[in-house]
Amino acid sequence: MYSPQIRKLIDLFSKFPTVGPRTAARFVFYLLRLPKEEIQELTSAISDLKEKVKLCEFCFKSFEGEGELCEICRDPRRDKSLICAIEKEIDLIPVERTKKYQGLYFVLVGTISTLKREDIKKIRAEELLERANKPEVKEIILALNPTTEGEATVLYLERLLKPLNKKITRLGRGLPVGAELEYADEETLSSALEGRK
Amino acid sequence: MYSPQIRKLIDLFSKFPTVGPRTAARFVFYLLRLPKEEIQELTSAISDLKEKVKLCEFCFKSFEGEGELCEICRDPRRDKSLICAIEKEIDLIPVERTKKYQGLYFVLVGTISTLKREDIKKIRAEELLERANKPEVKEIILALNPTTEGEATVLYLERLLKPLNKKITRLGRGLPVGAELEYADEETLSSALEGRK
Amino acid sequence: MYSPQIRKLIDLFSKFPTVGPRTAARFVFYLLRLPKEEIQELTSAISDLKEKVKLCEFCFKSFEGEGELCEICRDPRRDKSLICAIEKEIDLIPVERTKKYQGLYFVLVGTISTLKREDIKKIRAEELLERANKPEVKEIILALNPTTEGEATVLYLERLLKPLNKKITRLGRGLPVGAELEYADEETLSSALEGRK
Amino acid sequence: MYSPQIRKLIDLFSKFPTVGPRTAARFVFYLLRLPKEEIQELTSAISDLKEKVKLCEFCFKSFEGEGELCEICRDPRRDKSLICAIEKEIDLIPVERTKKYQGLYFVLVGTISTLKREDIKKIRAEELLERANKPEVKEIILALNPTTEGEATVLYLERLLKPLNKKITRLGRGLPVGAELEYADEETLSSALEGRK
Repeated sequence: MYSPQIRKLIDLFSKFPTVGPRTAARFVFYLLRLPKEEIQELTSAISDLKEKVKLCEFCFKSFEGEGELCEICRDPRRDKSLICAIEKEIDLIPVERTKKYQGLYFVLVGTISTLKREDIKKIRAEELLERANKPEVKEIILALNPTTEGEATVLYLERLLKPLNKKITRLGRGLPVGAELEYADEETLSSALEGRK
Repeated sequence: MYSPQIRKLIDLFSKFPTVGPRTAARFVFYLLRLPKEEIQELTSAISDLKEKVKLCEFCFKSFEGEGELCEICRDPRRDKSLICAIEKEIDLIPVERTKKYQGLYFVLVGTISTLKREDIKKIRAEELLERANKPEVKEIILALNPTTEGEATVLYLERLLKPLNKKITRLGRGLPVGAELEYADEETLSSALEGRK
Repeated sequence: MYSPQIRKLIDLFSKFPTVGPRTAARFVFYLLRLPKEEIQELTSAISDLKEKVKLCEFCFKSFEGEGELCEICRDPRRDKSLICAIEKEIDLIPVERTKKYQGLYFVLVGTISTLKREDIKKIRAEELLERANKPEVKEIILALNPTTEGEATVLYLERLLKPLNKKITRLGRGLPVGAELEYADEETLSSALEGRK
Repeated sequence: MYSPQIRKLIDLFSKFPTVGPRTAARFVFYLLRLPKEEIQELTSAISDLKEKVKLCEFCFKSFEGEGELCEICRDPRRDKSLICAIEKEIDLIPVERTKKYQGLYFVLVGTISTLKREDIKKIRAEELLERANKPEVKEIILALNPTTEGEATVLYLERLLKPLNKKITRLGRGLPVGAELEYADEETLSSALEGRK
């Protein structure tokens, strides 16, 4: 029912995360209403993205500007003995927001999407091993999601990093804020009981 | 926490319908992973959109190709005595899918978003009046959503079209497929009772 | 984990409509906290229910008091030429609330639960036929839910009532208040188009 | 619209946890359909409840049978040095299900409903203090829900129990199974970072 050009753009938007064909169609009709200058602004911003934005040579976080390290890796106040390995860049935001972590990061997948089982091969495992091997690094926190996929990846990385003989930790399991015992799963409640203090 | 270029694109995507800042961030990280050619393909498709896609001179539906009329208005098999006025182009799809309507359309707002009260002034009311005034037009179906805003617009359009002395109709109200009496609102059930047959 | 008496009552409450074992357990613990007099009040109210409440001889609605007819069937202001057949007694409430219906009712199943396919044999079809055959009855409205089961029952009842040569109607189909064309199913939208006025 | 007896029972059922008037009406119509013997069975089970079921003299869990202690408090294999204080009896079930806890319990409120702020006065705080003071008790786990109300109660109980100079613990906080960092709240993630191991 849509014309070829609209159809094409619906298909491209449908590949965006969380976007289905109906939402993609909404996007196209939204763009059809936009004045020419705003269309121009959007396409320039998209084109410039990959030119302006670089990935940090150490942690693979995206950044802009001079040099090869991102603003966190460059920051002299950050604790270089700690590496927090996260699945995807966006996971860095809640960790920073806690204001409880002052170490460095390492982005394992470099993608926004949640880790799938087949992605284990695609993660930057060798790169993490190499970073973790630096003499100043004392602890590697494997801050992956406590999902089946995240657990599998953690097991894989623990085995890989073991020969380094460094401290390898995982995020603590337990009851989250607002939880109710009545609805807690056995594994979470077991962790909460064991981790009582 | 995001660099300026990422921030900028997040802001632009946040204006897309149904997109909040978190989803906009996901879009940006998705684009960061895309190979250069796919970025190029996307920006071209967006740029070409407004050049290739025209609005039909009669019904304001988008279309591509030669001439000034869309494929529906050009179709000799469509019944030119009937105009179905819809809020936005996307509403045409469910009506076509019923295969029960063979007349023409008229897109009132030209936008994908749902009609808001302040939009009544922005709809193509004069253009509808002019189309409806054509001698071959015998009935105008005001197929707006049975929401408060849709109803207000229908009342406004009925008053506007009344002097033409043509048949002006609305979509039938009643119980939809799968409804349960127990949960039906009074207005819908009243319509269902009055419209019994 | 529960003691036998608690277990037993959980089982009994689990048979209540919409109640699962977890909610049933909540009910039992609620009762355990209740003072003796309130327990007494509840069990008396339950025991008295079937003694005090009768089913109307004409329409099978529940009622209390003298006589054999419910307050609606007894009401001289109600229009005896109209019978509105409903699946279950609770469906009478939304119809009454519309204040658009002044006829009589007929409760087909006498249950609160939604009609299932195997229930067709259990409905009061013969009784409806007998009521509908009365000379003063001019129209029978088959006000069943427009669900697959409701439709099947309506077809069955139409065939049964046809020999009476009386007006047999169904509730009007169409878009309910607040609906959006964009999300309407084909059947509902077809009805809305056909039922336009 | 309902007769007095039905109305009365709807009111009584509406006081049940999670039950609103509509569900209460469904319950009444369900009972109206039940054969007399099943009504009898239900009212007996309700009446017998408070006679057969006792509260344990130590932990206030409900139980049936001889003696003054529930089956857990009587069980010689349970570790008498540990008391796990829970908000309501039903919270005992997920803890038992973990098979990681072999101590005793203490039911603080004796109710199934979640603790409200005004309930702090109503909890069995003095009774807990008295149990905790027994020489064999070495640790009291305050296993309340990590909600605002639960936290407030834990603070209150910690202050109360402090003079005993015994180990007082809370359930560990952290990420539950299946959580995603991206959506974790700051407090939970802070706990997960601090509790890493």
